[in-house]
Amino acid sequence: MNNIGIVSYGHTKYDFLPDDAPQLMKGVIDECLESVEKGISPKDIGLVITSCVDNQFSNQHQTGALALRYLGNLDAEAFRVEAACSSGSMAAYVARKMLTAGYVDNALLVGFEKMSGVSTPTATSILIRGGSPEENLNGITQPAAYAMMAQIYMNKYGATEDDYALVSVKNHSNAMRNPLARFHKKLTVEDVKNSRIIASPIRLLHCSPINDGAAAILLSNRPKDFTDTPVFIKGMGLAHDTLGVFERSDPTSVMASKKAAQKAYKEANVGPKDIDVAEVHDAFTPVELMIYEDIGFAEKGKGYELIRDGTVNFDGKLPVNVSGGLKGKGHPVGATGIGMLVESFLQLRGEAGDRQVSEVNLGLVENHGGTGATSVVTILGR
Amino acid sequence: MNNIGIVSYGHTKYDFLPDDAPQLMKGVIDECLESVEKGISPKDIGLVITSCVDNQFSNQHQTGALALRYLGNLDAEAFRVEAACSSGSMAAYVARKMLTAGYVDNALLVGFEKMSGVSTPTATSILIRGGSPEENLNGITQPAAYAMMAQIYMNKYGATEDDYALVSVKNHSNAMRNPLARFHKKLTVEDVKNSRIIASPIRLLHCSPINDGAAAILLSNRPKDFTDTPVFIKGMGLAHDTLGVFERSDPTSVMASKKAAQKAYKEANVGPKDIDVAEVHDAFTPVELMIYEDIGFAEKGKGYELIRDGTVNFDGKLPVNVSGGLKGKGHPVGATGIGMLVESFLQLRGEAGDRQVSEVNLGLVENHGGTGATSVVTILGR
Repeated sequence: MNNIGIVSYGHTKYDFLPDDAPQLMKGVIDECLESVEKGISPKDIGLVITSCVDNQFSNQHQTGALALRYLGNLDAEAFRVEAACSSGSMAAYVARKMLTAGYVDNALLVGFEKMSGVSTPTATSILIRGGSPEENLNGITQPAAYAMMAQIYMNKYGATEDDYALVSVKNHSNAMRNPLARFHKKLTVEDVKNSRIIASPIRLLHCSPINDGAAAILLSNRPKDFTDTPVFIKGMGLAHDTLGVFERSDPTSVMASKKAAQKAYKEANVGPKDIDVAEVHDAFTPVELMIYEDIGFAEKGKGYELIRDGTVNFDGKLPVNVSGGLKGKGHPVGATGIGMLVESFLQLRGEAGDRQVSEVNLGLVENHGGTGATSVVTILGR
Repeated sequence: MNNIGIVSYGHTKYDFLPDDAPQLMKGVIDECLESVEKGISPKDIGLVITSCVDNQFSNQHQTGALALRYLGNLDAEAFRVEAACSSGSMAAYVARKMLTAGYVDNALLVGFEKMSGVSTPTATSILIRGGSPEENLNGITQPAAYAMMAQIYMNKYGATEDDYALVSVKNHSNAMRNPLARFHKKLTVEDVKNSRIIASPIRLLHCSPINDGAAAILLSNRPKDFTDTPVFIKGMGLAHDTLGVFERSDPTSVMASKKAAQKAYKEANVGPKDIDVAEVHDAFTPVELMIYEDIGFAEKGKGYELIRDGTVNFDGKLPVNVSGGLKGKGHPVGATGIGMLVESFLQLRGEAGDRQVSEVNLGLVENHGGTGATSVVTILGR
């Protein structure tokens, strides 16, 4: 599958945006097609997969067919995939399989979410659907579910509130350099620790924000036909865990991400030490420390050392979430996975502007759904 | 792809059911696995694709991961696909591609919808999402969109209200023989013509009902390992049209179904005359007459002759919707496409009980989304 590459992208700012869901889709489809360096015709795109998390956000069924309108090719095949917050990476995972099998040569992936202005009490009451039916029924929201994980991790491994705060501080600092990011506001550890409790130990400034946004990428099995500098998907893994945190033998690990990373490393024939830059799923920042462990950047129970010693900072040895992450860049849920792939694409092409990391040969993207019942890990290179 | 076969199924009654969405899923997964004649282990199933149309119905994201719980194998891969009312067939379409490419050997498809008890004014206000953004914004509900098609078809080709009523009469009559059907109530042409107007010329008794339900099938690329009498998918086509009825040059044709049928016939190397029994997407019964034309059962503008002369009746030469169709059997939207495949499976195995059609060698299933922006046509045989 290693001939499959990303050749172009589209990406809105993540923010409260005036556009509705169809306008968000149209914007990134246009941008993605127009930025193909050697040009592409809509009829050369045989497959479109859309990613959005909730129909109540999109106010639309059949977003696949709608994407074909904006693509300008009703002869392509199109459908939506959904796996909660990992939907974007899932779209890429499924498309890559279709490309590898030779069913189509080029596939367009369109992730979007219109989270503001939804006609229900709060977006959180929609996002609770990402957990298990039992958690949903008992009012365990996503922050509450992550709080259980964060509390157990502190008790078991000695992570502190300062460690959790440092992740938010780092990701907001990184977002300062990203013009597409939701927040351009520096935080201190004290800011985070003084922000209001949402579900102890999770505070407001540990939570990724509600916002709108969209991202698209064009995947090809002949990427050099479209650009001299494609970014190849070197390895990709999909794995699952129980939906409910309460069902897990070890809630301090996102086991699906661990398994997905192992699959991705194996396919790419590399290890954690070979990765130069990573985007990980910090929907609630404490989990970022657990992810370091699950993707092999740190030993079990020692993830917090990487944030304490600065390894994962922008100027550290292994920068994580240089985009600002879900916390600082934003988390329009259906767009997120594709937006993370866009960040890795930019870093590998040396086009990340003020946030460009030097000497990037391999990037990793970890994108999970809910508290990790689904996870997709992707390794990208030139 | 012609080695891919259906080996077992699960299917609830379509009705207002006490089960919630997870219970509906569990029920059909259990039934589908337990009815595999030569037995199967959950670990032999490498892929699960779920089909449901709206998260507001399911109250759940990540139904793929939830299905793995009920399957009892977290090592399989799982995701949801959505393409409005064609989601069930889309799940089969995508799974068949994955099986053909050899990524997995066996795939479980789970369609379901919990439409009753939804916390919004009406299910219709959710199902309006199946149309174009413009139709949605202007309050063109699904019955209203179909009404435009039905009115133009009458004007253009001379179909009458009696013809439309006869489709409902036939499908309700057929549903009498189906224990899984929502309605067991005979209708007369007068009943239909006297029922209240929903969107002229569409009356209440032209409309498929809101109800709950679920259906599952097990697809295998080694189907004889699991049963001596699998039903093979001989051909399958996916095609699209504009989302909005107003965007179409000819609103009296479901063009996506026409194109999808042509692809399916071509792959199966058969024609309309070879089909013995068909299930078609009579979400609103007038469209059934147009579908006869689009799938080649009748010339353009002459579909109504088949209902007038009884060709498509249970005892006719080419029975259509012997299950009762969406009108008589019911239309739990995410389950529908898979339920239609189950009906064809039963007819081809000679297991359809009181509604068994004699000498069935080839079955056809036509399943479209919204008013036909997405359509999947499947041809099944032994």
